[in-house]
Formats: sequence, structure tokens, C-alpha cells
Amino acid sequence: MSDILHRIGIDAKPENVFAPLTTIEGLRGWWVSNTNGNAAHGGLINFGFCDMQVIAAEPDQLVHWRCTRGPEEWVNTDVIFQLEWKQDQTIVLFRHANWKEPVEFMHHCSTKWATVLIGLRRGLEGGAFTAFPDDTKISGSWR
Amino acid sequence: MSDILHRIGIDAKPENVFAPLTTIEGLRGWWVSNTNGNAAHGGLINFGFCDMQVIAAEPDQLVHWRCTRGPEEWVNTDVIFQLEWKQDQTIVLFRHANWKEPVEFMHHCSTKWATVLIGLRRGLEGGAFTAFPDDTKISGSWR
Repeated sequence: MSDILHRIGIDAKPENVFAPLTTIEGLRGWWVSNTNGNAAHGGLINFGFCDMQVIAAEPDQLVHWRCTRGPEEWVNTDVIFQLEWKQDQTIVLFRHANWKEPVEFMHHCSTKWATVLIGLRRGLEGGAFTAFPDDTKISGSWR
Repeated sequence: MSDILHRIGIDAKPENVFAPLTTIEGLRGWWVSNTNGNAAHGGLINFGFCDMQVIAAEPDQLVHWRCTRGPEEWVNTDVIFQLEWKQDQTIVLFRHANWKEPVEFMHHCSTKWATVLIGLRRGLEGGAFTAFPDDTKISGSWR
């Protein structure tokens, strides 16, 4: 199994980072603009290209999703956000865990998650939120 | 062992991507502005905070460095760039491989490498090169 790892520090309190991870309106801002469903504990989030079951949502500390539909390499992988208030910032430790193989698509997704998390940081710090389809591009095409 | 993975596609020919990976002037543009040493096959590159031995430099295809000095988590890790011309872009498959443990610093470095590679892409596509200390910030501090 292989994991994508990331870390950002956001100049915002943990509750202000937790909210956009656990509300549909929030997710529409920083990840996918046509998100639907229920982003609370136990809910199912429809991001269009994939569905995520909300396995855990511990206020201001942890959000854990499991992919139940999407690109085949994503199905049954876990997306985990750990939040910690440290040195006047909220540290987000991110893992997209349990890929079966470190395929080329995993390389792409790793870079892409970085751009998405940096967009979350920028938006929460007063800049623009840039959810798909206004996201940062990292290649002409990925396949 | 754990690996950081990334993938970007650059609108430039492989030889134009290979050059900034294997010349001191090039490295000063996209990664660390006070880089010194010898970035050709067999050379030792001094990036200030770390040294990289150039294990392989196969024109337009592969660059492989091994860290011989630097943050303790980096020593003896490998940094590998594979280049491939595909769909009118140079695909860079990147690995910072063989971390002993997926420590918090590895999460930070993964996000940071994404910003650095995106900066390489931007610079080669006509935008600004943004080597350290003008690099994209991803947190207030990392420790």
C-alpha cells in the first residue's frame, strides 16, 4: 500500500478549517464546485467524479473519508485530514492512503492534492477559493 | 520505506526540461537560488541546506540524485526525475524515494516539492521562476 502525504499550515483556527471540510458549501469552495450530498459524520458526499463516505468527523481534529465510487485506483482508498493548532496556525496533515500500487495516476493525484490544499489555505487566509473547474492546472492532460 | 511522488506535464521539449535539472544555473532558477557545485553525471551539487550526488543524468530521460548531506531524514534518500515526451508535453515523473519513515517532515516536503515542480513548469512555460527564497510558502513554519 502507498500513501500520498501533504502538510500545510493555515492562518485560521481549527474550527474554521474543519467547517469547509465538513459542509457541502465549504467543499464547493476549495475542491469541487458541483459537490452534493452530506459531508457530516456518516454522510455520503458526491463530488461528481467520485463518492466519499464520511467515516469520521471529529470537530476541529479529524476528517476521514473512504472512496466508495470513482476512478478505479481510488475505490477503497482513504482520505484523511488531521488538524492541529500549533504555533498560531492550524496544521493540516493530509493522507490519501492505501493505494494498491504507486501508479502514474497516483503521482498526478499527489501533485494535484497539493494544489487543492494550497487553494484551501489561500481561501481561508483571505485569497480566492479555486475549486474545480477553476483549479490550478499541472499538465496538459494526465493520461 | 516511503516515497514522495509527483507528476507534472510541461509544454517544453525534454531537452529543455533536462537542462535546468543538470546545470547549476538552471537549478538556481527553479529550486535554490544559491546552488553551487557540479550538476552533471558524477557531480556533487551543493544546495546550501543539502548536498546531492548526481547518480545518473541520462540526457532527456532521467536524473537521479542521492542526498549525502542535509536534514537527517533526507540523508541517503533518492531524488529521481523521469522525463517522457507524451501528448505534446514533457511528463516529469518525480520521486523523492526511500524515506525511512513517513514523518511529519515528509508530509511537508511532499507539498513543498509540488510547489517547486509547478514553479519549474511555470518558468519553462514563460512565467516566472521562483527559486528559494522567492518560493511558494505553504505554512507559517514547518516544525
